[in-house]
Amino acid sequence: MPSTPATRRIALDCMGGDLAPAAVIEAAAQISRQTAIELLLVGDRAQIEAALARTSANAAQIEILHADDAVHMNDTAWQAARRLQSSVALAAAAVAEGRAEALVSAGNTAGTLMHAARVIPRIAQIERPALAAVYPTRPRPHNPDPFALLLDVGANLNCTPEDLLDFATMGAAYAARISKVSRPTVGLLNIGEEPNKGDELLRKAYALLAAAPGFEFHGNLEGRDVPRGVVDVIVCPGVLGNVTLKLLESMGDVVLSLGEEVFRRKASWRVGRWLLRGGIARLANLVDYSSYGGAPILGFEKIVIKAHGRSNARALENAIKVAAKAVREDVCGAIACGVHEARRRQAQ
Amino acid sequence: MPSTPATRRIALDCMGGDLAPAAVIEAAAQISRQTAIELLLVGDRAQIEAALARTSANAAQIEILHADDAVHMNDTAWQAARRLQSSVALAAAAVAEGRAEALVSAGNTAGTLMHAARVIPRIAQIERPALAAVYPTRPRPHNPDPFALLLDVGANLNCTPEDLLDFATMGAAYAARISKVSRPTVGLLNIGEEPNKGDELLRKAYALLAAAPGFEFHGNLEGRDVPRGVVDVIVCPGVLGNVTLKLLESMGDVVLSLGEEVFRRKASWRVGRWLLRGGIARLANLVDYSSYGGAPILGFEKIVIKAHGRSNARALENAIKVAAKAVREDVCGAIACGVHEARRRQAQ
Repeated sequence: MPSTPATRRIALDCMGGDLAPAAVIEAAAQISRQTAIELLLVGDRAQIEAALARTSANAAQIEILHADDAVHMNDTAWQAARRLQSSVALAAAAVAEGRAEALVSAGNTAGTLMHAARVIPRIAQIERPALAAVYPTRPRPHNPDPFALLLDVGANLNCTPEDLLDFATMGAAYAARISKVSRPTVGLLNIGEEPNKGDELLRKAYALLAAAPGFEFHGNLEGRDVPRGVVDVIVCPGVLGNVTLKLLESMGDVVLSLGEEVFRRKASWRVGRWLLRGGIARLANLVDYSSYGGAPILGFEKIVIKAHGRSNARALENAIKVAAKAVREDVCGAIACGVHEARRRQAQ
Repeated sequence: MPSTPATRRIALDCMGGDLAPAAVIEAAAQISRQTAIELLLVGDRAQIEAALARTSANAAQIEILHADDAVHMNDTAWQAARRLQSSVALAAAAVAEGRAEALVSAGNTAGTLMHAARVIPRIAQIERPALAAVYPTRPRPHNPDPFALLLDVGANLNCTPEDLLDFATMGAAYAARISKVSRPTVGLLNIGEEPNKGDELLRKAYALLAAAPGFEFHGNLEGRDVPRGVVDVIVCPGVLGNVTLKLLESMGDVVLSLGEEVFRRKASWRVGRWLLRGGIARLANLVDYSSYGGAPILGFEKIVIKAHGRSNARALENAIKVAAKAVREDVCGAIACGVHEARRRQAQ
């Protein structure tokens, strides 16, 4: 059925993620009750129906598409690629065919990337779609949304300077439409602030970024700037982004567990710790970077959101809402325009 | 004067570091009173003498070598390289000539690296000396020393797989002699655990590391493993190591300042926070990665320790003690043996 501007249809990989299918179905049920978003649930029909029966989902907004197979969380990239009848493969195909407008999966990252790439066209002139991580930062003056985008975080291990420029353009288009920043700021992750810092890739990327339209180039950033939230979009090659993201994710854990050990040593500290328990839980939640919706995969003609493998129902609800918002705000169109404009400027 | 096994002579760059020369001289005075270590203080003689006069240093263990110039903290690499009469240049020369056995500087990193490289020979078969960061981790079962080594953190931006093998061999020799681990464990920083993860550099390095003698290869590590302290030595190319280190350094700051904001919101949390103030200060100290002595630059025939630019007197004392220990334990000899053995094994 064709969607009106108000109703968006999201294909949901019900078999992907550590807590699938239960958490995925729970999120779907919530979404169907609280929003007008329509859902195409892709996966094992018997399991999906059994899980749905335990919820009070609004059946009118839900359709099921059966899949015999599923990509496993620990499948290698090659194993994942061969599962052509998996839930994520069929969900991607449904998006490519227009049965849904966006794909959300909490499954195996390589599987989601490859099955999307197999059937969903890339935006014209984009060589490499990128995996972007959304992470919380301190509030920035010009951006009320306390989130920033880091890309690429592992989809592209060998990048050219032009790829890094595309990442910046795509990330800025996403930030402009999702966080409503009129002119997003972009930084290049490097080993120092000066323009001549870094290897050849980073120096050439700096020059391209400084000349690019579509965003405000802040220059080079250092590792310490990542959690501080200096810019809206940070670009870097995939290995660097992946290590950075996983370090960020573990940050809260390590400091909180060190705190637990230290605070146990004195009676007054134990009392203080007990009084603070609610505050500490809130802090733990703030720095749990895995609970923040999903990571958009940018560069396809359709929206693809990769939710964290550990996503619970609440994180999946956020991912579905972000996917619907990205469709509504035509993020893919904004990316196409941004890349077109950047190429035109480069050719001048 | 020739050193006996008990007395070690360290050349100290008195003009390098954010708190130089005061903090450097304060550290030197403490060392001269509390240990048998002899010090060659290199820098502006008038400033050094004035600062020394404010301490109760043991003059018998201290000699001054005057330098007219100093590398500034914000000199570019090229500016630093041209300062041939700077304190760090003369200190490196004194070490090369045997007037001291090790160099300690809290100054400009590029300056320390370049002036050391200009006059101190590299260990045979080592192509690239590496900058290693010492950082605190959770205790590991086989290693009582709660520190691990991360290298390279910015001296080598373009690395070969063989360079990464050398970093591992050098780091393991350092850990064996300084932390007294009989067979250090080494990990390769990557985007996933499987041997085939990463780009060509990382996949080739994995194969070399797995076949190398001299340490226990743990395999690939992910970003989240860095603060957890899974291994004694983590190897990676310089851009990745630099960003990782600076992110680690900012980690405590960010979580503590988020905590400050959160804990202010409720009266009982404010009381808890007040009771915990001593514990929080202790935690802040634990996660202040910049207060831990120095970063060894490995691969030269003499010990070179780069202390953090923000080093206070206590951090500098630690750096001097580590330098003396590294001389006493013949870390450079251990590295030479380790590299020789690794090359012999590769040639078989």
